[in-house]
Amino acid sequence: MDINNYLRQKKELVDDFLERYLPSPNEHPPIIHEAMRYSITAGGKRLRSILCLAAYEASGGKDSAILTLAASLELVHTYSLIHDDLPAMDNDELRRGKPTNHKVYGEAIAILTGDALLTLAFEWLSNPQFTRSLEYQVTVRIIYELAQAAGSSGMIGGQVADLKSQGEKINPRELEYIHANKTGRLIRASVRVGALAARSSAMSLAALTSYGEKVGLAFQIMDDVLNVEGEKDFLGKSTGSDAAAKKATYPKMLGLEESRRQARELIKQAVGALGTFGSKASRLQELAKYVISRRR
Amino acid sequence: MDINNYLRQKKELVDDFLERYLPSPNEHPPIIHEAMRYSITAGGKRLRSILCLAAYEASGGKDSAILTLAASLELVHTYSLIHDDLPAMDNDELRRGKPTNHKVYGEAIAILTGDALLTLAFEWLSNPQFTRSLEYQVTVRIIYELAQAAGSSGMIGGQVADLKSQGEKINPRELEYIHANKTGRLIRASVRVGALAARSSAMSLAALTSYGEKVGLAFQIMDDVLNVEGEKDFLGKSTGSDAAAKKATYPKMLGLEESRRQARELIKQAVGALGTFGSKASRLQELAKYVISRRR
Repeated sequence: MDINNYLRQKKELVDDFLERYLPSPNEHPPIIHEAMRYSITAGGKRLRSILCLAAYEASGGKDSAILTLAASLELVHTYSLIHDDLPAMDNDELRRGKPTNHKVYGEAIAILTGDALLTLAFEWLSNPQFTRSLEYQVTVRIIYELAQAAGSSGMIGGQVADLKSQGEKINPRELEYIHANKTGRLIRASVRVGALAARSSAMSLAALTSYGEKVGLAFQIMDDVLNVEGEKDFLGKSTGSDAAAKKATYPKMLGLEESRRQARELIKQAVGALGTFGSKASRLQELAKYVISRRR
Repeated sequence: MDINNYLRQKKELVDDFLERYLPSPNEHPPIIHEAMRYSITAGGKRLRSILCLAAYEASGGKDSAILTLAASLELVHTYSLIHDDLPAMDNDELRRGKPTNHKVYGEAIAILTGDALLTLAFEWLSNPQFTRSLEYQVTVRIIYELAQAAGSSGMIGGQVADLKSQGEKINPRELEYIHANKTGRLIRASVRVGALAARSSAMSLAALTSYGEKVGLAFQIMDDVLNVEGEKDFLGKSTGSDAAAKKATYPKMLGLEESRRQARELIKQAVGALGTFGSKASRLQELAKYVISRRR
């Protein structure tokens, strides 16, 4: 199966899970459940889920609870997009080619929708119906992993630093902090959650962590590059919006050429980190390469 | 020890824990950690924590992890206040007599501060340093309890229904839904978390759940009453703001007198629910009475 089929197949599994287990829009109060579904089903490659599933498979995992973990990552990712798009933050009107949550439901509901998706992630992870087959100790470890990655020293920290960087001259170290946390941290956690669920050895976990970090950073650099180069149709949001917001980006600091080179270098290192896994990690290798070849 | 000393002593324990374990304002990026501390230390009775501790003691609990659980409830409570105060929601400028988070740090940081506090609650609950002494199964159960209570069918659902009720004529059932969820659900969970941590029997848990529900609803009714009657100094926020926002409240629907009577009746029922606990539940009884006697 080539990587595109793999991506399609896994995305379908995750989408089916989300569709099935997100609260029904009939549940009271309907508007919040409708708004949660709106943003979750508004598209998305499910890259974090797929990295989690692939890391799990590479670590020899066989547990059915993994789909819950993978889907929970998408809840956290989508919450972060909804809040980032708010007028008080990036003020984006389009996301994946569709009106952002607050354009459809208003700011108040959009804030609460993000809150609800974040909370639901932890509800799913601790729901006995979903994670019964994992040992409780592993479940707690995974919740801790996700909470740390999403928190004020992780994803939120990156978003705060990003907001503060607007219009400022920042150094490369701060830019790396922003990218490693704003986007990279959840991608790293996705890989780690897969490994933890499979009870990966400390050595394998370290290798996968390194892989996840580098893929996460490369992903964000490519996002910046595509933001400059991309066509509106492809990215589904107005391109050049980073420049308009005076955000610090890799292309702005290093130029497009050098940014691409650094992303390629990171992917080379990510693949290198998988050395000991051999052929078991071939999907992870392909996924790393996919991250810098993608057009959107 | 009278109830006021009990309240003071427990509040001090919780405040010390929060002070000690909230991320340092030196941690990067400083602004978010400063903003988290600002709202957490801006006051508050720590009622949810204290209900959790008292339910735990009534259930015979002896575990040191309980303080983490109690403090986590305050993280969730404070996050909900920060988001509720936002311009897109209740647009409050004062909270506990101090400028609200967004008045001090701006809307973007206030949204992220709420997000960070919510996330930190789950980080604390799953942090092995804090909850090692609990069985993992109990930890997962408590995380599930909190996530359900805080989610779109709990606290967030109540806030959504409250927002939607503004300017609308709503029936008593919907008003009860709002109060039972917006405020009551986290209060109920506080009691339940204490009971779960103590591995309370199913029967005791049911009794404490009933107690928590009634106290939670009475608490919100009294909040509405105080909002109408209260002096600005006492509540620390502009009084009459519910009426200004055309919110559905008990006093508006039933009048002040009847609202007070219903609150008293609920507290009587709450105390009644504790019957089988005998003297072990004397603190919970006093706390229930405190809820309707408080001036703020």
